[in-house]
Amino acid sequence: MIAKIGGAVVGHGGMGDFHAHRMEENPEVDFIGAYDINPERTKKLPGNGKAFSSLEELLADERIGLVTVATPNDTHKEIVIKALEAGKNVISEKPVTMTLADLDDMIAAADKAGRVFTVHQNRRWDPDYLAMKNIFDKNTLGKVFCIESRVHGSRGIPGDWRNQKEHGGGMVLDWGVHILDQMLMMTFPRKLASIYAHLDYVTNENCDDGFHVEAIFDDGLVYRAEVGTSNFISLPRWYMLGENGSAVIRDWDLNGEIVMVSDWENRDAVPIIAGVGLTKTMAPRTDDTIKHYPIERVEGDWRDFYRNVCAVIRGEANLIVTHAQQRRLVKLLETVFESAVKNEVVKLSL
Amino acid sequence: MIAKIGGAVVGHGGMGDFHAHRMEENPEVDFIGAYDINPERTKKLPGNGKAFSSLEELLADERIGLVTVATPNDTHKEIVIKALEAGKNVISEKPVTMTLADLDDMIAAADKAGRVFTVHQNRRWDPDYLAMKNIFDKNTLGKVFCIESRVHGSRGIPGDWRNQKEHGGGMVLDWGVHILDQMLMMTFPRKLASIYAHLDYVTNENCDDGFHVEAIFDDGLVYRAEVGTSNFISLPRWYMLGENGSAVIRDWDLNGEIVMVSDWENRDAVPIIAGVGLTKTMAPRTDDTIKHYPIERVEGDWRDFYRNVCAVIRGEANLIVTHAQQRRLVKLLETVFESAVKNEVVKLSL
Repeated sequence: MIAKIGGAVVGHGGMGDFHAHRMEENPEVDFIGAYDINPERTKKLPGNGKAFSSLEELLADERIGLVTVATPNDTHKEIVIKALEAGKNVISEKPVTMTLADLDDMIAAADKAGRVFTVHQNRRWDPDYLAMKNIFDKNTLGKVFCIESRVHGSRGIPGDWRNQKEHGGGMVLDWGVHILDQMLMMTFPRKLASIYAHLDYVTNENCDDGFHVEAIFDDGLVYRAEVGTSNFISLPRWYMLGENGSAVIRDWDLNGEIVMVSDWENRDAVPIIAGVGLTKTMAPRTDDTIKHYPIERVEGDWRDFYRNVCAVIRGEANLIVTHAQQRRLVKLLETVFESAVKNEVVKLSL
Repeated sequence: MIAKIGGAVVGHGGMGDFHAHRMEENPEVDFIGAYDINPERTKKLPGNGKAFSSLEELLADERIGLVTVATPNDTHKEIVIKALEAGKNVISEKPVTMTLADLDDMIAAADKAGRVFTVHQNRRWDPDYLAMKNIFDKNTLGKVFCIESRVHGSRGIPGDWRNQKEHGGGMVLDWGVHILDQMLMMTFPRKLASIYAHLDYVTNENCDDGFHVEAIFDDGLVYRAEVGTSNFISLPRWYMLGENGSAVIRDWDLNGEIVMVSDWENRDAVPIIAGVGLTKTMAPRTDDTIKHYPIERVEGDWRDFYRNVCAVIRGEANLIVTHAQQRRLVKLLETVFESAVKNEVVKLSL
């Protein structure tokens, strides 16, 4: 039987409560309690969770070996470093921080303390992402030349600090961190060659409530990542184009399909009327030259994230979400903002 | 009764034959005949059309007042100028030419000859375009911040000179000319502030078989125009986002809808599970805060193009497709290629 690791949460909002429950359910973790600057938020905790009255009290509790930080984005750095210095292993919510310089300070603190430090990139286990990555990895569509990843909602940025720039709000640092992390993971080991980004300010003058990023990789692969929060009609979640076929996943439920060409040479289309003109190029294919396939589900279990952290703390595994990956991601976030502010293509080798 | 204008076609391929038939059907035009460098192509002409044995013979025919040029793109300039110098009024197929310098030579020739010179931008009458322009013009969605126009096929570039760069092939100069002309017409009188473009070379190493253009206008409007020819699954033809609603037209048959918010303030969403995480931002709206509307068809008649040309020849109207519009469009085409070749954002005021 493995000795349980005492777990605690700092910042008990929506995501903090999520982590508290996951710790409570986790057979490898003993959920000790949580601290929030607003004591109202820790009145109800899962299990026998204790409401700590200060961060210092929590960090002084020797039962606690693992602290998950789920505070607003601009406070991660200070709390993570304090927790590491107190000898805790630390999970930070995403984005780990807003600048590479801050991240490097955090990594240095982890190295100095000799403790585990990682980031909750939970959407590496999203079924839609895993299904699309599987199609890409297996080369199902032939050489892929374009991947499009979109997350569309229509509620603007709901409430609290998430729409305040000074607290690290905005969609690049919210959903962007997820879908850009997925981009880097799916396309690894390719290197990013250029970034073009545009930010939206539809519902909010100070804080991006949507964005469009066009990344070009060193082998020519184009990857478009987009978040919108004023989209009352959604485009598909995923769209992938290969030389021999296309794949689409329309929603979180993995509705979608793969369409493969079965007869590439058969291009002798009969022109169709499209609008007021004729087109041979855009004549739809008939079913004798294409085949339809369903989207294959891939097994994945988000709980592997905490399992991995616990195993790393016990010295039995390497981190899934590594410092090198986080450095690359934060550098990409910086590049997205740089491109958008300048309205320029930023060329790089990342 | 109006005196008929004698009409002829130079270049009797797919589009030339289209024009020959439209002239033959047109009560204001007397279709005289056609010339093609390949005599096989003029063996069958509509009505009593004559197969001319040379361009010179055609231009010397005094019955002919209007010549439509439907030859490969790289030959428009020479033939158009010869026809103008022979005293003919001239319609060029699109793209009128590939460089602004060439276009200016053609315009100078028209001015010198005192003849009508215009370009067949037929897709200004496409029902899908007119329906989307109507939504935009009426401000149906509130302030529009993003328009996306996509044309997706899966046959590569079918046959002939259209996939040969030296003849002006490629999708920027084919479908691009249409959808970028629509962009300039829909958004007029806004000015283009920047262009970012990426070209695809999926089926062909020398000639773009797809492209993605992101245009930003001086008021911040983002307009994305995209053509793909290796897309076995199509994204919607049109997608428009306004502050209060979204519109989509999925196909040439105008399948689509408008979704408008009826209660913007109601953002207090219940978080949903999306992938392995919770999201309040991306929780779909329920029908109590949105309303669905059909796409309204707008009356339009492509035959207005030839009617207009005939009226201009008679001195009774001004051109619909003007020299100024064509200069702006060709400058935009040049900018698209410049941006794509450099992989840079080109800033301009156009």
